[in-house]
Amino acid sequence: MGRAMAASLVAHGFEVRTWNRSGGKLDGAESSPTIEGAVRGADVAITMLSEDSAVRAVTLGEGKLRASLKPGATHVGMSTISVALASELAALHEESGQHYVNAPVFGRPDMAAAGKLFIIPGGPPESVTALDSLFKAMGQGTFPMPSAPHSALAKLCGNFMLASTLEALAETLTLGEKGGIPPATLLQMLTGTLFNIPVVHGYGGMMVRQEFTPAGFALPLGLKDVKLVLAAADGLEVPMPFAEQLRSRFIEAVAQGHQDLDWSGIALVARESAGLR
Amino acid sequence: MGRAMAASLVAHGFEVRTWNRSGGKLDGAESSPTIEGAVRGADVAITMLSEDSAVRAVTLGEGKLRASLKPGATHVGMSTISVALASELAALHEESGQHYVNAPVFGRPDMAAAGKLFIIPGGPPESVTALDSLFKAMGQGTFPMPSAPHSALAKLCGNFMLASTLEALAETLTLGEKGGIPPATLLQMLTGTLFNIPVVHGYGGMMVRQEFTPAGFALPLGLKDVKLVLAAADGLEVPMPFAEQLRSRFIEAVAQGHQDLDWSGIALVARESAGLR
Amino acid sequence: MGRAMAASLVAHGFEVRTWNRSGGKLDGAESSPTIEGAVRGADVAITMLSEDSAVRAVTLGEGKLRASLKPGATHVGMSTISVALASELAALHEESGQHYVNAPVFGRPDMAAAGKLFIIPGGPPESVTALDSLFKAMGQGTFPMPSAPHSALAKLCGNFMLASTLEALAETLTLGEKGGIPPATLLQMLTGTLFNIPVVHGYGGMMVRQEFTPAGFALPLGLKDVKLVLAAADGLEVPMPFAEQLRSRFIEAVAQGHQDLDWSGIALVARESAGLR
Amino acid sequence: MGRAMAASLVAHGFEVRTWNRSGGKLDGAESSPTIEGAVRGADVAITMLSEDSAVRAVTLGEGKLRASLKPGATHVGMSTISVALASELAALHEESGQHYVNAPVFGRPDMAAAGKLFIIPGGPPESVTALDSLFKAMGQGTFPMPSAPHSALAKLCGNFMLASTLEALAETLTLGEKGGIPPATLLQMLTGTLFNIPVVHGYGGMMVRQEFTPAGFALPLGLKDVKLVLAAADGLEVPMPFAEQLRSRFIEAVAQGHQDLDWSGIALVARESAGLR
Repeated sequence: MGRAMAASLVAHGFEVRTWNRSGGKLDGAESSPTIEGAVRGADVAITMLSEDSAVRAVTLGEGKLRASLKPGATHVGMSTISVALASELAALHEESGQHYVNAPVFGRPDMAAAGKLFIIPGGPPESVTALDSLFKAMGQGTFPMPSAPHSALAKLCGNFMLASTLEALAETLTLGEKGGIPPATLLQMLTGTLFNIPVVHGYGGMMVRQEFTPAGFALPLGLKDVKLVLAAADGLEVPMPFAEQLRSRFIEAVAQGHQDLDWSGIALVARESAGLR
Repeated sequence: MGRAMAASLVAHGFEVRTWNRSGGKLDGAESSPTIEGAVRGADVAITMLSEDSAVRAVTLGEGKLRASLKPGATHVGMSTISVALASELAALHEESGQHYVNAPVFGRPDMAAAGKLFIIPGGPPESVTALDSLFKAMGQGTFPMPSAPHSALAKLCGNFMLASTLEALAETLTLGEKGGIPPATLLQMLTGTLFNIPVVHGYGGMMVRQEFTPAGFALPLGLKDVKLVLAAADGLEVPMPFAEQLRSRFIEAVAQGHQDLDWSGIALVARESAGLR
Repeated sequence: MGRAMAASLVAHGFEVRTWNRSGGKLDGAESSPTIEGAVRGADVAITMLSEDSAVRAVTLGEGKLRASLKPGATHVGMSTISVALASELAALHEESGQHYVNAPVFGRPDMAAAGKLFIIPGGPPESVTALDSLFKAMGQGTFPMPSAPHSALAKLCGNFMLASTLEALAETLTLGEKGGIPPATLLQMLTGTLFNIPVVHGYGGMMVRQEFTPAGFALPLGLKDVKLVLAAADGLEVPMPFAEQLRSRFIEAVAQGHQDLDWSGIALVARESAGLR
Repeated sequence: MGRAMAASLVAHGFEVRTWNRSGGKLDGAESSPTIEGAVRGADVAITMLSEDSAVRAVTLGEGKLRASLKPGATHVGMSTISVALASELAALHEESGQHYVNAPVFGRPDMAAAGKLFIIPGGPPESVTALDSLFKAMGQGTFPMPSAPHSALAKLCGNFMLASTLEALAETLTLGEKGGIPPATLLQMLTGTLFNIPVVHGYGGMMVRQEFTPAGFALPLGLKDVKLVLAAADGLEVPMPFAEQLRSRFIEAVAQGHQDLDWSGIALVARESAGLR
């Protein structure tokens, strides 16, 4: 994902220095063996990682992003992280005289490669505005939120909607199948009428074909996001029965050994719970 | 709804005779004071009613639709009904030498008036084919199912997806609102990114404005449909945790006196459960 | 169950005539090949059957219990039935100048044999009082309810509490087991501290030993009762999230082929959902 | 709670030094203004606090319990804490050449005062054995677990069973009440038949009287424990649909402003969700 995003920037003429854990390189970009080397002197440092702990590991501590970034520069955190971490990063960068813009995205790697992401930025308004051309290079639209933690929350809200759609689809297709409606026929009805959106076409198609590998977004990441939603809901005192149900389902999937499936693989668990094999 | 559908037929040159409980009339159509009068001699009789019991009351018994319809004619049942009733009607009409095509629709009254419904027909293939021009007059697309009960089930599957979307939206918007994101901003993000579909625009908009009257589809009808989904799931032995959760939510809404709201009014209950007034 | 109850009555000197579908006989009791023969001339007719449909089949129609029972006599319905059927039977027997006392029981066959049932009678007060010695012969305690349907509801409330206890135990023991606490050790703690009651000893023991056959109370009967609870909750507009969850669990169990297990066998499904085999 | 437990020890002739945040004193015990003073030289240090953070605050850091306890002495942690913290404390005390026995309890303050607690100890076997007379002074029974974290988990399992019983009771009594059965009558039936245990008598009685203050165990503590159960379930990969439902219910109660009620006050929320006021 990060690679595809960086490639978009290169294609739009941005000067890019990259760092990643596995040391991969990107045509047109300088690569640095250290975080410090990648960040030093930059106006903007972008992170795109899988979870809170990875973001912490890359950002905080000696020789890491925050310690290496020059004053007045901006850290653009594009990972899906907890509301709490977004707050913390905003405060820490401010302490260092830097800016933090949280800017998670919706979109799969192919959309990133095409510069077609949706970006949800939140942070100091001038910092967000200053990133305009950068966001245009990577995305087809931006939806600004009032602050960094708000943008983290908004992204989690979107992922919760997605996960709910997956579970609803999984139950629907199982019901239809046991009732004798071919899953492809039922999906065609759904996408042909009320649910004509890429997520239903795409995930529904994976469920119909029962093809959950390779994982575009692995099941344990789905579980992680549902937990982040519930952590936010907990802090804000919001009962979320669907989110609770989702956590139970994702844990069930992981407990049954489906770690390597795409998160739409919860459909497999729904089918099996109904006695289909 | 029935009136709008009949008007579409009139507009397309079909000869229409109407009957309804309140005796309303429609320009260009003959109206009959009795079911028998409306049906006698017709090739096709269409019913559009709110629930199983109303369909039974109009169809079965002396002087009713089935007793009055000529042999070889077709009853097109366009109401959302139980899988069990669809099976029963198919069998009863066959006994009488008639045909039964179950053909529920997706779409609100304004879509019916514009001839833009989606129609999900199921029945004897020749009967369904013979209705082609009639369906074209009322709808923008048909999605045939293998049989009458399959079409009833498919429609319930669609309504379950809708109700799940409502609950997910209700939880999401409540979470966002308690977290400080204006509901309109969050909805704009959802519709601008992954959920760019009329149902999210429409129902989400009602939730944002907290305008749940007049009810396009009343909350007790939503409860009725969730119960029909669960009745089907029960017969087919399919665990549906989201559907169970939905029933609990709709009962909560009705128990709290929200019978007159649109079914998207479950968002009100979700907000209140989170302490928002 | 019925046999054990009848034996208690015989042991207490009641004159008993029996009828059952399989034609089994009981020492000390006259057996009749027909319902009519068993009921004719009796002051009291007792039914103990597995579900609504069986009670209807035995009670209603020509040559059945209601048609054969003399005026002024009492039908004591001891089965676990729906609130709706209890109402209906009360009305129908009243129409026939008979009395209906609904009197479901708590207790397993061994408790019935020992005359140790708990009886929950509801009906006309004089009729209930008149049954005092009969209830004493069969039970160790009676808990009168205001009417026949109230007694049906109270019994369902008890069964819901039982089913909830089963699910909570199933989840607890699974959690403990995956965490490394031997199920027997955990159960001993529960029964030794806060849950020192026969149902936790008994059902918990079955879960610890994973012995769910022979079924004292078969899983599909548990599902039936949860559905009756939800039907009552539906009519009374009471959201019952635990009951909804239970239905999902019991359907899951049945869908996976566990029809022959005791209803405590939902623990097997809980274990498997956690990846234990 | 801690005061009542200390009083039991004094009554049994143990030499007791106390420390608490509010500086309260206990007849027969020396009181220390500092943790260090209370712990220095002792063979056994007992902690009884409301949650993980309080246990951490008292135990870890300069001048705190761990730093002040002599080598070879034992810390007996009797609070209900997370499995993770129990593991951590066991490891840290071992590092310091001390012993850690986790020993949470079941029982309310009145049971503590009467020396009637149930104690669930887990830790090095010799350390647990050495505490025998101390546990006998405070409790009516001990249920040893294989290790400190196992004992934390077992206690959480018990609390989950309790919380599930509360929710099931809340739903049952609401259903009965809307159906016309006086809650006291229904509770009498439950306790008179299958649920003749103090927790159902006690909490059920509070629900019947709708008296949820003063809180024996406050609602937010119930929520905290449900979250600890789910945290354990998450780590162990156990789907727990009842626990998820409980969290949703407790959050609902807290969001609606019921922080000061006893945790059985979830019955109030269940009633209101059913439209009862």
